[in-house]
Amino acid sequence: MIDVYSWPTPNGHKIHIMLEECGLAYRAIPIDISAGDQFKPEFLAISPNNKIPAIVDADGPDGQPISLFESGAILLYLAGKTGKFLGNTDREKYDTLQWLMFQMGGFGPMLGQAHHFRIYAPEKIDYAIDRYTNEARRLYGVIDKKLASSEYLAGEEYTIADIAVFAWARSFANQGIDWADFPDAKRWFDVISARPAVQRGVQVLANLRKPLETDKSKDILFGKTQYAKK
Amino acid sequence: MIDVYSWPTPNGHKIHIMLEECGLAYRAIPIDISAGDQFKPEFLAISPNNKIPAIVDADGPDGQPISLFESGAILLYLAGKTGKFLGNTDREKYDTLQWLMFQMGGFGPMLGQAHHFRIYAPEKIDYAIDRYTNEARRLYGVIDKKLASSEYLAGEEYTIADIAVFAWARSFANQGIDWADFPDAKRWFDVISARPAVQRGVQVLANLRKPLETDKSKDILFGKTQYAKK
Repeated sequence: MIDVYSWPTPNGHKIHIMLEECGLAYRAIPIDISAGDQFKPEFLAISPNNKIPAIVDADGPDGQPISLFESGAILLYLAGKTGKFLGNTDREKYDTLQWLMFQMGGFGPMLGQAHHFRIYAPEKIDYAIDRYTNEARRLYGVIDKKLASSEYLAGEEYTIADIAVFAWARSFANQGIDWADFPDAKRWFDVISARPAVQRGVQVLANLRKPLETDKSKDILFGKTQYAKK
Repeated sequence: MIDVYSWPTPNGHKIHIMLEECGLAYRAIPIDISAGDQFKPEFLAISPNNKIPAIVDADGPDGQPISLFESGAILLYLAGKTGKFLGNTDREKYDTLQWLMFQMGGFGPMLGQAHHFRIYAPEKIDYAIDRYTNEARRLYGVIDKKLASSEYLAGEEYTIADIAVFAWARSFANQGIDWADFPDAKRWFDVISARPAVQRGVQVLANLRKPLETDKSKDILFGKTQYAKK
């Protein structure tokens, strides 16, 4: 049994989708990041960066339990455990890895900043909104161009790189993206959206998420920590 | 022979350090990102996200040449090729992976935003400066706490996770970091700084970098692309 400590955000969805795709037995344990669950000692013990998702697999690589944080590491772990969605050769594995890293290093973090400045920040700051909206368009341009010549990001097979990018692309509207500008990416998005495991994955814990309505929730999410210095 | 298309930035340094640590034969080919070299078709053919570093290894996993982009993927590739700096067991491999992903998904991108708003942005925007300076302090707090109980990030051995985080921590001053607040991270930083391969790695191409003085260089780096929309 795999325990997944999670919340219905893009990074959470990645793991819920992968677990469904692999048909693994799992239990989703909600970590309400708008209520501060991510700062509780028992969660920090498995996720020292106070981020979801994290997992504890009772049946780790050496038969002992293993805990892991960071969605990209968890995707690679589950791919290694099942032999699925990481390509069939070393070359395909590295093709997948580079697009997974593209998501981890850019397509996730920069779109996260777009969400923040376009939607959540208490001030409307034109410079930051333009910076991250332009970067969102640039990033969708990169995947659109790639997907004009291959079915999936790493080639002709669906991989964890597609799962990772898809989980963030679901929020395209919040990123200022009009699919009409990215037709090949849209074709790919629709193909992945139609997968039954994906449809199940994005529903995991989804009924728990509420709009961020209170200033207290925003303070918890956006940086009032012991390290803040004015 | 490995060709590394690169520039002396944190992400470039990661690969230069790793190549030196592994004792691999390589040739560093400068891609001047302040002059727009990253948008040339021959570079985009190996790095479609127009970012350095990228590599072409004439001796790929199947004996054929392979090209790779994204520093995190390249580190894993070089670790796989040499059997070095990725731990000795599957468990150690995944411990390393989660800290590598911590760098790829947070410690790099968020410190990059700190650099941007603290130093390069044409406007001083207090909200954004505070947001990323606080996040920098939070991230250094995470590694400081981890390094209070282990010699290196993934445990008792030096790995690619240390190389990746170190390459960004070199710019601590630009991130508003005072090492006095993070003594265990400072101990770790000094140990890595003293490694001869690290000292060689950070010098690769270093004489080519100039201060960003012109508006034209800033436009190239900060978003005037065909996807920008006002």
